[in-house]
Amino acid sequence: MKKRIGILTSGGDCPGLNAAIRGVARASYDLLDCEIIGIKGGYKGLIDADYKVMASHDFSGILTRGGTILGTHRTPFKQMRKIEEDGIDKVANMVKHYNQLKLDCLVTIGGNGTHKNANLLREEGLNVIGLPKTIDNDIYGTEMTFGFHSAVDIATEVIDRIHTTADSHDRVMLIELMGHKAGWLTLFSGIAGGADVVLIPEIPYSEEKVYEALEERRKKGKDFSIIAVAEGAVNKEEAAMSKKDFKRYREEMPFQTVSYRLANQISTNLGFETRVTIPGHQQRGGSPSAYDRVLATKLGAYAARLIAEENYGNTVSIVNNKLRATPLEDMAAKLKLVTRDDDLVKTGEAVGLTYGD
Amino acid sequence: MKKRIGILTSGGDCPGLNAAIRGVARASYDLLDCEIIGIKGGYKGLIDADYKVMASHDFSGILTRGGTILGTHRTPFKQMRKIEEDGIDKVANMVKHYNQLKLDCLVTIGGNGTHKNANLLREEGLNVIGLPKTIDNDIYGTEMTFGFHSAVDIATEVIDRIHTTADSHDRVMLIELMGHKAGWLTLFSGIAGGADVVLIPEIPYSEEKVYEALEERRKKGKDFSIIAVAEGAVNKEEAAMSKKDFKRYREEMPFQTVSYRLANQISTNLGFETRVTIPGHQQRGGSPSAYDRVLATKLGAYAARLIAEENYGNTVSIVNNKLRATPLEDMAAKLKLVTRDDDLVKTGEAVGLTYGD
Amino acid sequence: MKKRIGILTSGGDCPGLNAAIRGVARASYDLLDCEIIGIKGGYKGLIDADYKVMASHDFSGILTRGGTILGTHRTPFKQMRKIEEDGIDKVANMVKHYNQLKLDCLVTIGGNGTHKNANLLREEGLNVIGLPKTIDNDIYGTEMTFGFHSAVDIATEVIDRIHTTADSHDRVMLIELMGHKAGWLTLFSGIAGGADVVLIPEIPYSEEKVYEALEERRKKGKDFSIIAVAEGAVNKEEAAMSKKDFKRYREEMPFQTVSYRLANQISTNLGFETRVTIPGHQQRGGSPSAYDRVLATKLGAYAARLIAEENYGNTVSIVNNKLRATPLEDMAAKLKLVTRDDDLVKTGEAVGLTYGD
Amino acid sequence: MKKRIGILTSGGDCPGLNAAIRGVARASYDLLDCEIIGIKGGYKGLIDADYKVMASHDFSGILTRGGTILGTHRTPFKQMRKIEEDGIDKVANMVKHYNQLKLDCLVTIGGNGTHKNANLLREEGLNVIGLPKTIDNDIYGTEMTFGFHSAVDIATEVIDRIHTTADSHDRVMLIELMGHKAGWLTLFSGIAGGADVVLIPEIPYSEEKVYEALEERRKKGKDFSIIAVAEGAVNKEEAAMSKKDFKRYREEMPFQTVSYRLANQISTNLGFETRVTIPGHQQRGGSPSAYDRVLATKLGAYAARLIAEENYGNTVSIVNNKLRATPLEDMAAKLKLVTRDDDLVKTGEAVGLTYGD
Repeated sequence: MKKRIGILTSGGDCPGLNAAIRGVARASYDLLDCEIIGIKGGYKGLIDADYKVMASHDFSGILTRGGTILGTHRTPFKQMRKIEEDGIDKVANMVKHYNQLKLDCLVTIGGNGTHKNANLLREEGLNVIGLPKTIDNDIYGTEMTFGFHSAVDIATEVIDRIHTTADSHDRVMLIELMGHKAGWLTLFSGIAGGADVVLIPEIPYSEEKVYEALEERRKKGKDFSIIAVAEGAVNKEEAAMSKKDFKRYREEMPFQTVSYRLANQISTNLGFETRVTIPGHQQRGGSPSAYDRVLATKLGAYAARLIAEENYGNTVSIVNNKLRATPLEDMAAKLKLVTRDDDLVKTGEAVGLTYGD
Repeated sequence: MKKRIGILTSGGDCPGLNAAIRGVARASYDLLDCEIIGIKGGYKGLIDADYKVMASHDFSGILTRGGTILGTHRTPFKQMRKIEEDGIDKVANMVKHYNQLKLDCLVTIGGNGTHKNANLLREEGLNVIGLPKTIDNDIYGTEMTFGFHSAVDIATEVIDRIHTTADSHDRVMLIELMGHKAGWLTLFSGIAGGADVVLIPEIPYSEEKVYEALEERRKKGKDFSIIAVAEGAVNKEEAAMSKKDFKRYREEMPFQTVSYRLANQISTNLGFETRVTIPGHQQRGGSPSAYDRVLATKLGAYAARLIAEENYGNTVSIVNNKLRATPLEDMAAKLKLVTRDDDLVKTGEAVGLTYGD
Repeated sequence: MKKRIGILTSGGDCPGLNAAIRGVARASYDLLDCEIIGIKGGYKGLIDADYKVMASHDFSGILTRGGTILGTHRTPFKQMRKIEEDGIDKVANMVKHYNQLKLDCLVTIGGNGTHKNANLLREEGLNVIGLPKTIDNDIYGTEMTFGFHSAVDIATEVIDRIHTTADSHDRVMLIELMGHKAGWLTLFSGIAGGADVVLIPEIPYSEEKVYEALEERRKKGKDFSIIAVAEGAVNKEEAAMSKKDFKRYREEMPFQTVSYRLANQISTNLGFETRVTIPGHQQRGGSPSAYDRVLATKLGAYAARLIAEENYGNTVSIVNNKLRATPLEDMAAKLKLVTRDDDLVKTGEAVGLTYGD
Repeated sequence: MKKRIGILTSGGDCPGLNAAIRGVARASYDLLDCEIIGIKGGYKGLIDADYKVMASHDFSGILTRGGTILGTHRTPFKQMRKIEEDGIDKVANMVKHYNQLKLDCLVTIGGNGTHKNANLLREEGLNVIGLPKTIDNDIYGTEMTFGFHSAVDIATEVIDRIHTTADSHDRVMLIELMGHKAGWLTLFSGIAGGADVVLIPEIPYSEEKVYEALEERRKKGKDFSIIAVAEGAVNKEEAAMSKKDFKRYREEMPFQTVSYRLANQISTNLGFETRVTIPGHQQRGGSPSAYDRVLATKLGAYAARLIAEENYGNTVSIVNNKLRATPLEDMAAKLKLVTRDDDLVKTGEAVGLTYGD
């Protein structure tokens, strides 16, 4: 009997989603007698029974395309159990539609929120397999997520371009990169682009340390500097605040972003001319890099193998550089953050980079 | 007797400066018995007698490099005649050093400010030839300046990436591009990137017209839109202000840039989710495009021909798609701005773009 | 009454076809009450009555895409009048279907062959408008065709990469670029990439002159050189042959391409290590450059204006850097080739490039 | 007392050499009191005592640059012990100069040949540390070498471009990629680019299997196909030949490369139009990718740590995704080749790719 496989993509978009969908589908057709049901717009599609029975040719020509052919939507974990808000029992709906569609399993492709929801469905007794995607690379239990290296390539190209012009105008250039909680993208791109200062959420900075680093360079005759800042970077005072205080504090801050504030501080205190660059959603767009296409394809094809083995309740991950199944219950509520003693942090420091701590 | 040729680059840096320097130098060596003197750091180098006698090999390997091997500096025209400020008679110094260096002519590579200064030196009796560079393409008397198409390529790539992600998240994305006075870069990139709204300094916008365009798209089922905004774009109220009033008004505005303000207005008034991207100095950096390398080389080689003919007091320009010498006195105080009936403006409108006017 | 506009794309594909189709369509919808009929697979679609009535949304999202949504096919002019071959009166068919479809005009987008066929249909009394596309830039009567600058960007990037490695290994690197009859692409990219030798069909070369140039560089301590060769480049002996003799001669040549032969000659005669790179169809692929998107859009929008004015029988061209209508009868049988005194040729020479003549 | 550290780069150039040099140098300055001696032109520089005492600023601005500031040279292992050829005792010279320079250790950056030579010097009693670079990724004992992912990015971009044009012209396109012995680059890029057939040295192919795959696609209405071929790919007959027979056989083959032969066979036997693209040395050129810059920096910084610990006789490698020291004697004579059961090979197959075996 044909296996019926549901697939959905959930959360913020990133390069490689289509490559992963294609990987799951093609490898499933190859290994199994199966039918694939595309759930539209993430978990919302499962809540609302919005889906499409896919044909083999639907997966042709999508490997290199950005975005997702299934659509995506942010469906916060917090909302899942809250029936009162809209009167809809979302979890019950998902279970009901899963059964109505006679699914044998559901493949969910997404980031941390997606995996929390996947684990919730697992707890409800559904057969779920997760695939880890995010430009933040902050999913616990896997060494790498797809989307990350595509974003790194873009961010590094931005830093490269800024370097050329910084050099000829003796300016301090701030580049604000994505990452509210995790600094992997800023850290990796900062090292790749030869930044002088890297500020990330996990390592609260002090303005004085940043000033020192810039002054140090000035003394050596280097009148320009490159600062890579994660959008979620905080200084030591902010790091010490309660969540609530911090939120109010930031809302009242007369600067749109942390970079504008720091740029202002640097020009006021050190007299440097400063410029802010915010690549923004550039970092999520366009065709996935070769690395991400292959990673997404590998993860997708491995998911098909797990389906063939009826080995459910896992996310496909990379551990010790090898494909592996990691139980959803072990990883779904955790975050993989940069630690001060990470090899990458140490490498950056060894080649002259400052973290401002 | 050897001709002695001085070269300097002045104003903001942009891709193609080195290609132009190489073009002048190599073609001069080819046509003439000559020696080339590199003036360092723009006009400042001529004021301070900071220079270097160049050798042929100094011009090797620089065609593809960003920045300028001669260095650059902004030396405002306004300051030229003001001796009192620093007690230096800048114009007299330049004339003196030109004579001490026994220069037969001076090639000045730069934008509008550079050309004003070049014309001033011409009035002082020096033999000057200008080369038009700027990412703004706003130099009067030439159809094209080098640097422009390199910046267009970068800005268009940014819009492309934003498009992918805008589409899958139903957002209004604002991309703020360079251009304080001239909108050529935003206009050209906006058409190339398929933007829905383009706002430029020359065409003051009304918020209502922008809202209308977004609502129009929403009605057609297109819940995302791309707005390309020049950093110098102004709405109709601002356009009507005096220069002084405008300056104060902007300083008090609680938004770092025009895009953040408009994004805020759009989300408040129409309920769209909005995101701002500011590519910033990305637009000036990196290797020149093929187009700009060839343009800069052609302009440079033509300058050498003018030197051989002792035809001074001109800038090398493109008129009717052909190389030409345009008298400095005819163009030095003017600006080439976008007009409402420009072919490019009309083309954009014909394919569905809105200017908000 | 609604105007009925047919559109077809014909000949080899190149970046910008979809941008041009979109330009024609959107500007026509804007200016006119009209219906657009997409003819599939070039003239073949008109011969076979293979077409589709297009809707406005068919033209969305295609600006940046390579290829052509209408499909293309090479339908040689030579075959048009030859009924005997397949028993089909192709010209009569095209006229018949044009009338059956009640077309008011036909927009044909393509290169030289396409324009010859367009002129033939004009002679048959149809209302035809041409749009000039080709990576070769060899269409008579227009200063620029779209597709050219996209190809130049790719070819130049190839030369750049080769430069890096040539330098560190002291080799003569040959890069064979597209162009059977016209050398514009090789010439422009060669100058942009800083090639040392450029060989193009219009300027037959002698091996001795090439050797001299390489030896000259060796004497100056430059042990590597970059040679950009058009695939249609010929030496002086070949240039003197009859067409028939040349064809046989080339078929018997024990080298797949002209570059392999020259590489062999150079290593045998001068002892240099040589390497051949053939970017091939890379040069036709991928998304159009910003320049080409805007050019194709401008040409397309101008075609709509000509339709509104019922000004038929022309191709849309660029003359003196301005949009213009050029009569098909004046340009359809001619080719725009590089001449020895072209400004670009002179510029290359002035900066040290050799043409081997 | 200052530690004296020698560094050399050897073998074919590839992106990331300068990043690795910078990593070693900066991390050494950070960890140690040391002086760095740059050996010029690979082992040749140690044989001839051609070197330069480096200053800290020599390592600035080189992170993003292709090539190597130290120069490189191929010095085959086979020649090392052969004194008779040129009368020079190369090994003795290297030991002598190592001692004269009072080196505490020597860091050798290169591929398989480089590591064999490094091991030889280790056997002579010198303190050696290797760093693995090659676009082939075929160094035994490490999961990854720098240079590989930069080459993959370039090769994948080529395949992408070819895809666009293949599609609209119904052709079989062959792309010949680098790799004489190892197929990693072709395999990875082939999967990333969505190739239909991948032919690599480790998996000898039969023409019939390739034909079958193409016919299979034709039956499904897909009249175009993409074949990625490693330059060292062989068919089953060739794989069965002795080395000597094979060499003669290939020399007599009337095709410059394996791709031209296969293209000819396919068009003759199946009637497809075919085109060959050979990106060639493009694959070795240009700025390293972000991935490679970080990998090279990490490996370099780790080498400095090994020097600080006086832990010599190793190459720095990646095992289980972590930095590690692998003894030179364990890896120097071995090659890491693709095996039929590799995860990447299986992944490719699962998503529909054919290896022709």
